[in-house]
Amino acid sequence: MTLTQRDHALAIFQAALTAADPARAVRKHWNINPADYRNIYVVGAGKAGAAMAQAVERKLGKRITAGLINVKYGHTAPLKRIELNECGHPVPDEAGVRGAERIAALASQAGEGDLVLCLISGGASSLLPLPAESLSLAAKQDVTRQLLACGADIHEMNAVRKHLSRIKGGQLAAMAEPARVITLILSDVIGDNLDVIGSGPTAPDASTVEDARAVLAKFGIETDAERFLHETPKVSAAANIIVGSNRQALAAAAKKARSLGYRTLLLASTIEGETRDVARMHAALAREIRQSGNPLNPPACLISGGETTVTLRGPGKGGRNQEFALAAAIDIGGVCGITILSCGTDGTDGPTDAAGGVVNGTTFGDGARKALADNDSYTYLQSRDALVITGPTHTNVMDVHVVLVGPAG
Amino acid sequence: MTLTQRDHALAIFQAALTAADPARAVRKHWNINPADYRNIYVVGAGKAGAAMAQAVERKLGKRITAGLINVKYGHTAPLKRIELNECGHPVPDEAGVRGAERIAALASQAGEGDLVLCLISGGASSLLPLPAESLSLAAKQDVTRQLLACGADIHEMNAVRKHLSRIKGGQLAAMAEPARVITLILSDVIGDNLDVIGSGPTAPDASTVEDARAVLAKFGIETDAERFLHETPKVSAAANIIVGSNRQALAAAAKKARSLGYRTLLLASTIEGETRDVARMHAALAREIRQSGNPLNPPACLISGGETTVTLRGPGKGGRNQEFALAAAIDIGGVCGITILSCGTDGTDGPTDAAGGVVNGTTFGDGARKALADNDSYTYLQSRDALVITGPTHTNVMDVHVVLVGPAG
Repeated sequence: MTLTQRDHALAIFQAALTAADPARAVRKHWNINPADYRNIYVVGAGKAGAAMAQAVERKLGKRITAGLINVKYGHTAPLKRIELNECGHPVPDEAGVRGAERIAALASQAGEGDLVLCLISGGASSLLPLPAESLSLAAKQDVTRQLLACGADIHEMNAVRKHLSRIKGGQLAAMAEPARVITLILSDVIGDNLDVIGSGPTAPDASTVEDARAVLAKFGIETDAERFLHETPKVSAAANIIVGSNRQALAAAAKKARSLGYRTLLLASTIEGETRDVARMHAALAREIRQSGNPLNPPACLISGGETTVTLRGPGKGGRNQEFALAAAIDIGGVCGITILSCGTDGTDGPTDAAGGVVNGTTFGDGARKALADNDSYTYLQSRDALVITGPTHTNVMDVHVVLVGPAG
Repeated sequence: MTLTQRDHALAIFQAALTAADPARAVRKHWNINPADYRNIYVVGAGKAGAAMAQAVERKLGKRITAGLINVKYGHTAPLKRIELNECGHPVPDEAGVRGAERIAALASQAGEGDLVLCLISGGASSLLPLPAESLSLAAKQDVTRQLLACGADIHEMNAVRKHLSRIKGGQLAAMAEPARVITLILSDVIGDNLDVIGSGPTAPDASTVEDARAVLAKFGIETDAERFLHETPKVSAAANIIVGSNRQALAAAAKKARSLGYRTLLLASTIEGETRDVARMHAALAREIRQSGNPLNPPACLISGGETTVTLRGPGKGGRNQEFALAAAIDIGGVCGITILSCGTDGTDGPTDAAGGVVNGTTFGDGARKALADNDSYTYLQSRDALVITGPTHTNVMDVHVVLVGPAG
């Protein structure tokens, strides 16, 4: 049986998913010898916490002295030595605070010759809330809400939040001293900056209390919380290791594409912007390859990733990856030999049961433009058998876009 | 003196401009032996008509029997044998109709053994208005306005317009039979489709009167003009030659970039979409090259082209290329070793005296985000010495984007 371009696109996406699998990511980057340590404490937070913890238990077994990881409600798994604490996401709650307090206590208890192994994945920022002593979670969240309402950007938000937290901006690592700290990170942010992922609990913080005060002043925010601002560590001996990321997933996808015979370009893992415009640019690249052999001669594969943004215009059902696929389908309508896939690595694109979509020149038809105008990509792609369904993958390294262009028929 | 990355970006854009020069484009693709023909008639329309006509006069001199080209008011040049007829653009006027009638007469007058040389460039569609016999220009324009108001796309518009015209959709070529017809085209449309550029006066038309009627029915447009719909030629012996296009200009730019030592990818000549999102995608590609060497190791150059769209949000001064440069500048703010240029090949970006902008990591500063929010790219880029000023170039093959990334310093 001959594999179709669609089969190839799905196989290439599957290679990205495999590379982003939390347990495999932990195993692949494992470089810890338990014999080097007296006690081993496993802490952390994130939606992939359960799968990462399972991989760690398989490696360390009874060598784990104690462990606690904050995870999202329902994101659990059977474990023997590491406790999973379910808490609120995306809105932090008191269960999160109680877990963060216990995690801080574990890190503080570690001493000379001990290891604190920290597991961080998507959602860690919300799942590890620990306001400064005597500052309530509600008061801290109120500052965040005010900043958001004023249009503060993510760097301004973080500058304030880290200095109101007891655990973020490198403070977890500081508590663990003099123990060795190793953090394994599944990155779900553009650029993989260590101080941004999960607000960097074990990464030195470049921002200062002065910066935080300047942000509050800039937006004219007067708050009692200001007196709780305190300095964060500027240096850290912790080893922060990115075990899974969009870029690593794309590299695995590119390897798979090459093995299937495609000339392959990994374009970028940092694609942002309005979904339909990014999709149109990918469709333009596909048409150019078809027409002129630029930037590659067919059979060609372009791979990119990141996280785009949908501006909601209508009441339809969909997600950013399905909208990407639909917008691309319109621009390659009627053109032979092109397949475009866009899928989220978490397997749940928007509020739907699909990971994304996979389209070609025959996907476009009556109703496609209206579906795009209404943000109703799910319904349209479903009618064209163009949805990709994987089920929840329990990982998240953002989205993967695959463009395949065959030789002229 | 060492050339900077900015100098390189400007030199690469200049190479694109040179390739798009109308006179040079005509000379480069010249393959006409005047001895083969009895009479030679030169006709055409477009904003580059004057420069193309000058090049043709230099080649054919006194061998030109007669010639007339419709150009935009003020777009003239000294000529000896080809007459330039100034008329309305972008709104067609009666001067355009009178010129088109005389052009039709010249083509009809050509006989066996004669050559009709047709010169088409940007704006030719508006500059060559010739409604069906007894249909007024005003009545024809009224149909166009109604279609626009209903949201008809460009293909639907053209299907109706060509069948209400006496000269478009291959009809100019049909009039010239049995003379030989050669059309030299400077393309200003995405994809360079012969039947789209200037509404294809010498290209066979794939659409039918039935299609035109279906479009009117679809949008519920009832018009007297419907009885003037008539069939267009489905075949043509005319030779349509694209002498200048965005893709050719980008190829020349890529050649220049390689000669300057950059690993170079020509991405696509068909880039459309919302300007700031396309710009952000280019910035993301630049950052990726810097961080991971994908898709190229530095020193690297990415070249793309096409025509993006600005959604107006504020009252500022600018154009799509300046907005591209500003949006890119924000996303590469503070990053060393990246230069991004975006310029229109016509030298006049929006209602400004700049062709576009050229930015690097130092361009971003206070006020940049607000300038982007207000579509005020001209003012901001001017304050940062980041405008590119060429003056009007009298050509148009859409826009050129150049991304340069140097090796780590």
